[in-house]
Amino acid sequence: MSEAQGQGWEAGGSAKPSKREALIAAAFDLFTKHGFEQTTVDDIARLAGVGRSSFFRYFPSKEDVVFPDHEGCLAEMTAFLQDGSGEEDPVIRVCDAARLVMRMYSGNPSFAVQRYRLTKSVPGLRHHELSVVWRYERTLADYLRRRFAHRPDGTLRADVIAASVVAAHNNALRAWLRSGGQDDPTAHMDHALRFVLNSWGPEGEARSADDQDADDVVVLIAKRKAPMWRVVRGIEATLGDL
Amino acid sequence: MSEAQGQGWEAGGSAKPSKREALIAAAFDLFTKHGFEQTTVDDIARLAGVGRSSFFRYFPSKEDVVFPDHEGCLAEMTAFLQDGSGEEDPVIRVCDAARLVMRMYSGNPSFAVQRYRLTKSVPGLRHHELSVVWRYERTLADYLRRRFAHRPDGTLRADVIAASVVAAHNNALRAWLRSGGQDDPTAHMDHALRFVLNSWGPEGEARSADDQDADDVVVLIAKRKAPMWRVVRGIEATLGDL
Repeated sequence: MSEAQGQGWEAGGSAKPSKREALIAAAFDLFTKHGFEQTTVDDIARLAGVGRSSFFRYFPSKEDVVFPDHEGCLAEMTAFLQDGSGEEDPVIRVCDAARLVMRMYSGNPSFAVQRYRLTKSVPGLRHHELSVVWRYERTLADYLRRRFAHRPDGTLRADVIAASVVAAHNNALRAWLRSGGQDDPTAHMDHALRFVLNSWGPEGEARSADDQDADDVVVLIAKRKAPMWRVVRGIEATLGDL
Repeated sequence: MSEAQGQGWEAGGSAKPSKREALIAAAFDLFTKHGFEQTTVDDIARLAGVGRSSFFRYFPSKEDVVFPDHEGCLAEMTAFLQDGSGEEDPVIRVCDAARLVMRMYSGNPSFAVQRYRLTKSVPGLRHHELSVVWRYERTLADYLRRRFAHRPDGTLRADVIAASVVAAHNNALRAWLRSGGQDDPTAHMDHALRFVLNSWGPEGEARSADDQDADDVVVLIAKRKAPMWRVVRGIEATLGDL
């Protein structure tokens, strides 16, 4: 988050929200009418009734005006992760942190849908979005690395789970955006995150043998209708393999 | 991979490898001595003894000369995924596809380590690398989406697994790069991918109940040293409860 804080324009944005909002509205108006590449920062500033230097007080680049809420959301996510007692299940915690991003999008559906269409059609914006997504993923992974610091493969586990959560979030977000922002965003998120939690959350942990002392625990999954002799043979085979 | 083929400079590269290689060598020489931002395409072309337009025949941008092998590797990955019989386990297949990327890096350790240091210190290159990584992830996800097309949540499953594989690959790659390219890259990859396969591979599938009819499956966790009669009694009690 040092990157976010270092840019400094977020503070300016909250001090004078109306100017900032005028710039965002002007930018989207021009991007939609004339295209992203064809619109200059001067065009945006002129339509918003401010000077060019004012634009750069609020946004580091033309790309950033398309993603005006991400700095705030990244800061909120970081604070949320820091505020934990340390007793929470870490995977549930990062899933809840990812929900903050979905909430930011779904708080303004028409803007989110408009931006989705714009971003899909402008490669430069897609690249910019990748770097934003990467910062969310790093924020989640850094939190998980701290929580998993005592575990073997803590870094690997942290990186893979953070990537899974971000992929699930993006899947849910796209599904919601494709509904034109009409669907229930929470339902999409619950569904996608449940998929991750099934593998990496507290229940997935209990099911997965990879983490547990191989000497200590056997996990067997069998068809309920399997005859007992088949279940016993499965257990014997598994014990034999360990 | 239409994007890769569409750029066209890869074919030029293979027709005149020596000129292309001279440009790469000149670029890294100048980037290392004077910095990435301070070096122009003209500087690179001059040192390589070619014209500016020759540079752009081989590379779309200054950033691309830092990642000269990715287009070829993406094409190789796509071909590898297409060449399957369709009978392979899809998760094992994408893990093997990710190994191609590691093999590209480890085929030239000193270049890989040099690039790693350069990329870490230049934000523009990090962003460019993110877009390259994203294309690998999309290639893996597209393959998995096809393979999982018949499954409920096939797209979600494909996206999450592709992200997991890429995160595991990147974790292994970084570990290997931090060893200065001295460690065994295959050992790092095996280790990282095993972590993914434990959850999503054929064995993880068997362990995870999320896909199967909840009515259909029994999960039993028992101490390994438990006597068999106790295990059987546990199963009977569990089945009785259902």
